[in-house]
Amino acid sequence: MSSELIFGDLSVSIFGESHGAGIGTVINGLPSGIELDMEKILDFMARRAPKKDGMSTHRSEKDMPEILSGYYNGKTTGTPLSAVIHNTDTRSQDYGNISTAARPGHADYTGYRRYNGANDPRGGGHFSGRLTAPLVFAGAVCAQVLEKHNIYSCAHILSIDGVYDDRFNELDIPFELTEQIKKREMPLIDETRAEEMKARVRAASEQLDSVGGIIECGIVGVSAGIGSPIFDGIENRISQAVFGIPAVKAIAFGKGFEFAGMRGSQANDPMFMNGETVRTRTNNNGGILGGISDGMPIIFTAAIKPTPSIAQPQETVDFIRNKDTTLTVKGRHDACIVPRAVPVVEAAANIAILSFLV
Amino acid sequence: MSSELIFGDLSVSIFGESHGAGIGTVINGLPSGIELDMEKILDFMARRAPKKDGMSTHRSEKDMPEILSGYYNGKTTGTPLSAVIHNTDTRSQDYGNISTAARPGHADYTGYRRYNGANDPRGGGHFSGRLTAPLVFAGAVCAQVLEKHNIYSCAHILSIDGVYDDRFNELDIPFELTEQIKKREMPLIDETRAEEMKARVRAASEQLDSVGGIIECGIVGVSAGIGSPIFDGIENRISQAVFGIPAVKAIAFGKGFEFAGMRGSQANDPMFMNGETVRTRTNNNGGILGGISDGMPIIFTAAIKPTPSIAQPQETVDFIRNKDTTLTVKGRHDACIVPRAVPVVEAAANIAILSFLV
Amino acid sequence: MSSELIFGDLSVSIFGESHGAGIGTVINGLPSGIELDMEKILDFMARRAPKKDGMSTHRSEKDMPEILSGYYNGKTTGTPLSAVIHNTDTRSQDYGNISTAARPGHADYTGYRRYNGANDPRGGGHFSGRLTAPLVFAGAVCAQVLEKHNIYSCAHILSIDGVYDDRFNELDIPFELTEQIKKREMPLIDETRAEEMKARVRAASEQLDSVGGIIECGIVGVSAGIGSPIFDGIENRISQAVFGIPAVKAIAFGKGFEFAGMRGSQANDPMFMNGETVRTRTNNNGGILGGISDGMPIIFTAAIKPTPSIAQPQETVDFIRNKDTTLTVKGRHDACIVPRAVPVVEAAANIAILSFLV
Amino acid sequence: MSSELIFGDLSVSIFGESHGAGIGTVINGLPSGIELDMEKILDFMARRAPKKDGMSTHRSEKDMPEILSGYYNGKTTGTPLSAVIHNTDTRSQDYGNISTAARPGHADYTGYRRYNGANDPRGGGHFSGRLTAPLVFAGAVCAQVLEKHNIYSCAHILSIDGVYDDRFNELDIPFELTEQIKKREMPLIDETRAEEMKARVRAASEQLDSVGGIIECGIVGVSAGIGSPIFDGIENRISQAVFGIPAVKAIAFGKGFEFAGMRGSQANDPMFMNGETVRTRTNNNGGILGGISDGMPIIFTAAIKPTPSIAQPQETVDFIRNKDTTLTVKGRHDACIVPRAVPVVEAAANIAILSFLV
Repeated sequence: MSSELIFGDLSVSIFGESHGAGIGTVINGLPSGIELDMEKILDFMARRAPKKDGMSTHRSEKDMPEILSGYYNGKTTGTPLSAVIHNTDTRSQDYGNISTAARPGHADYTGYRRYNGANDPRGGGHFSGRLTAPLVFAGAVCAQVLEKHNIYSCAHILSIDGVYDDRFNELDIPFELTEQIKKREMPLIDETRAEEMKARVRAASEQLDSVGGIIECGIVGVSAGIGSPIFDGIENRISQAVFGIPAVKAIAFGKGFEFAGMRGSQANDPMFMNGETVRTRTNNNGGILGGISDGMPIIFTAAIKPTPSIAQPQETVDFIRNKDTTLTVKGRHDACIVPRAVPVVEAAANIAILSFLV
Repeated sequence: MSSELIFGDLSVSIFGESHGAGIGTVINGLPSGIELDMEKILDFMARRAPKKDGMSTHRSEKDMPEILSGYYNGKTTGTPLSAVIHNTDTRSQDYGNISTAARPGHADYTGYRRYNGANDPRGGGHFSGRLTAPLVFAGAVCAQVLEKHNIYSCAHILSIDGVYDDRFNELDIPFELTEQIKKREMPLIDETRAEEMKARVRAASEQLDSVGGIIECGIVGVSAGIGSPIFDGIENRISQAVFGIPAVKAIAFGKGFEFAGMRGSQANDPMFMNGETVRTRTNNNGGILGGISDGMPIIFTAAIKPTPSIAQPQETVDFIRNKDTTLTVKGRHDACIVPRAVPVVEAAANIAILSFLV
Repeated sequence: MSSELIFGDLSVSIFGESHGAGIGTVINGLPSGIELDMEKILDFMARRAPKKDGMSTHRSEKDMPEILSGYYNGKTTGTPLSAVIHNTDTRSQDYGNISTAARPGHADYTGYRRYNGANDPRGGGHFSGRLTAPLVFAGAVCAQVLEKHNIYSCAHILSIDGVYDDRFNELDIPFELTEQIKKREMPLIDETRAEEMKARVRAASEQLDSVGGIIECGIVGVSAGIGSPIFDGIENRISQAVFGIPAVKAIAFGKGFEFAGMRGSQANDPMFMNGETVRTRTNNNGGILGGISDGMPIIFTAAIKPTPSIAQPQETVDFIRNKDTTLTVKGRHDACIVPRAVPVVEAAANIAILSFLV
Repeated sequence: MSSELIFGDLSVSIFGESHGAGIGTVINGLPSGIELDMEKILDFMARRAPKKDGMSTHRSEKDMPEILSGYYNGKTTGTPLSAVIHNTDTRSQDYGNISTAARPGHADYTGYRRYNGANDPRGGGHFSGRLTAPLVFAGAVCAQVLEKHNIYSCAHILSIDGVYDDRFNELDIPFELTEQIKKREMPLIDETRAEEMKARVRAASEQLDSVGGIIECGIVGVSAGIGSPIFDGIENRISQAVFGIPAVKAIAFGKGFEFAGMRGSQANDPMFMNGETVRTRTNNNGGILGGISDGMPIIFTAAIKPTPSIAQPQETVDFIRNKDTTLTVKGRHDACIVPRAVPVVEAAANIAILSFLV
């Protein structure tokens, strides 16, 4: 279903347009009676909010979700949990010229063709990155349910414009580390990389350009035996969810593309008993074999393309008048969305993982 | 659904175990009245058959599908199309020791945990690469329906063990080229790379090891406006299908992970009118924006990990007795499954693309 | 999915609780560019509003839907259409005692068990008849899309407490008649039955009791060949949707249970050519054969049980304290919900039929 | 999905045509490790086999299912369970004239329109009652899983041509009774009605006509709290499954259409504590409130229309030549399919109920 994940008994539906009345989500299939800490949900959502210091749009988003249903006496009811974020600060006039000239790298033209011109083009409409706000809400809710299963997850910036953070220790991602990362302005394992990353973003911004990056996500505590073979395993569900994030163009589990240069003797993760528990010496497979968890941390990376909105003139087409034109995208745009995409990737992973446990 | 793709009105269900009575597929939602050229389907399936020259298992698979339903007077009926491949040559005794010691890199342990030990472990059971035979059958059927939409697709080996083929011309993949690739023993754009690739595979094999690689797939002729935003776009569906192939651990659309090092000004594909048609100067986005086709070739790559079955002793666990052990995998195994996985990737892509057109 | 219809490419999700912040719907898969006449939608919803003259609750519901997304410049965008109805007039105190004593005939006890006591019990919570307001909204939207296919539908009261209206002419349901029925205070073919029906309702009400009835629904203009065999035909989808309405306990297509006493020679609908069109002499099958439309009006009936909320003392259990008790339901309740359920049945049918056409 | 039930994590797909190579089913989502008693499955299927004594076709169906997958060492594996029934005795020549003249009451014309003439028309093709054989297989498998939950079900003939059996005691359906019914040639509570029913069928047959009837089904042992509100409750799922049976035209839960003439004070089932268990004094609601089980027997009835195949001349159309014609259906046909439909209804119910428990 176009804007909905349907994973067995769990579903997450996203609706809304960037400059419409509101955006939101309906989550179906949550277990009942789970206490939700609203502060934690807002903290999670705040991680997606615009960053200062050149990393941000200057749009002041409130993105305060109003829960309409499925939540009673501080707990999930088990019936559909819905939340709406009302759009308030939407300076539509900035977007005056976008409805006729396609912004390269955006879905203006493809959306126009898909919907025969009837879709709301303002600010990207339903394709806007703003739609990740309800997705983050849903993922934040799922995080709290995962907590009951002693599962936690964390994403961080693995790279921005070629500047790399450390990777997670594939064998062990301590809970404390993940908590620290989530509190950092730049969600990094090694905070010392923040300055260079920011400098790169500023440089791109000054050149009216933008940069991309990679996000790594780890999920810890999933016991062995969760998932399913062939078309509905952990990789299938996580990738279906993560490609729901605008700007994600690739995903890799464990060693991912590095596998292509490895020998089987290196790639296979040797197994051993750690007391009563099966563990592996390496975790090249990212905690997943045959679509099913092996008990090791589940680890994947996702590539984020550079923000398509750049303030340079670009060659494009006016897809209504069917003629060539040049476009300089106006409005307020992040020169790098990687930091803000970090909690979104984590949210998508939370939904996918929880879906196997409800 | 675990072994089933459900894409709107099209579904493909895969069933069977490597050493059971039979494997097969049920395809639901095909248009009626489509002539199927059975020779072409068998040709497609033959591309997945074992290769000679060190690239192969020595198992003689017939893999002759028997169509049970959905096909009448040479055409699809529109009702469920089902096909069964009866298993014949299955030397189970080779697999005598696998039911208690987990083969590293395989789903023996995870499958055991998932199904509490009740799954059929012989030859990997439902997790076996053999299950890709019905998947290829389904993809071959879909290919013939796509033909009616003037869509064709082709996958090729992009790399084996670090030896690279050319990439497709992202702006133009000629039909003739794709036909040639499909006929080649090694599905390559530049056939001259075949020898070195084979040498690498032989070398690994002699060292009782295996190698991985990358497969590139292009789909040509998809007009602009096919797909859907957020969770059910082309990337979502292709990735859900492609991760259904054992050994795939990563997928990338267009520039994929290279986007992480690009600037927006490089990454955005400039658009122009080519007569009445919108085209792009580059195709970094692999023909997809916002989950929807832009009319350019759809291009993605998938990483294939090295065959986990290697004839070296490996550290592992006996997951029934819960103790450490050492395992040397016996039986007949490809030292490189990349060539045989090529038509499987193409088949998965065909299913995903067709699902948007039925 | 619990509160969601997923019919191929169309889905309708319902969320909310009777006394929560709001109720609403998300409709996915609507075609784009369909003009929606909001007045007509409100008219449709008004048909569900409380009736005067003893037929009504005295609760003044506004039930004004706020469209949050999927609607732009007066037309559907093709992206998810969502609407919220904010709850305003909710005198929760009337329901003070319902959380511990199960109202017989209601889902208090079953909901409690299903959700382990975490569901919102106020006014029936998610099980409330109030949730049919967003369902009617969705059905009213679908009606306008069906109009583009020259399809119209109409439900009417077939009986209340044994007083019967005429049945539709199974061969021909004129559009004008359906328009008239929709405007009537009591949606009847033969208005002269209204008084007796109302008298029955009043009598029951005075005796602190309630009555049930039957609703008949016809859908006209569905051309032959719409639907699917076995599990996803017109009967399957309509029944799945219609049983989503609280109080519906039975559904019958065409002659329904009367078939049980018929001979094949009577039951089979003789076919003949009416110009270029195939027609049938009778329409016992209600326009459906093998799950697929035959071009005749689609006709079904649904049984509505008497309102479970009655002001008499009833034997029941306190399901928290696990003891017997007696309950007299307070609050404002319709002695007969049949008239208000009429547009709800029609709405459910609209969704089901449209799902075959998107 | 057209010939597939998708109920949360459980799915049942049916494929095949009456006179094609084979028919079968794929069941996805069964729990692993469930021992299947194949004798019991064959016994269940035998209940659907043709009856002697005028109740039968004279076609000798073997209908022996070959399990291809999902079953190992006498137990379910948890991976897709597939079974094929090869078609053997198919005298196609009897059906020589059906491809151009629509058999009234059958799906010949609607199927033709649905599939633009490409569907297999022989013997009804995919619409044939023969497709209920794999459905019964699936239901027989589900029955054995339900046994582990201490749930059993039983259907019986409630009426044939106006001759009625007793109804189940709505408060208590003893296991022993259900076992007896299943062994009877005519599945009745009161065997003394068998003769009159058979006489009616013989009479109709002699008059080249056919009769319909009603089937009642009870499911016992479902604890309170199973199901879901609105669109995915017990009624929704059972009805979606049961309307998958050709000839079913109506379904009623509990009192069904009788509710229309009841008062709320009669219709509401009074509740009381029976020790620790909540019970109801009556079971008008058929064990379901708000789509969720209340712990009482789940009871529904389904109407079966008279066999459409009758040996009388019937007015119909040649839908290829678009002209009126007269048809006398030849071949071997039951004058009453109610007895054979009994296990099919039970099978459909088993699938629906099990889907809430996996």
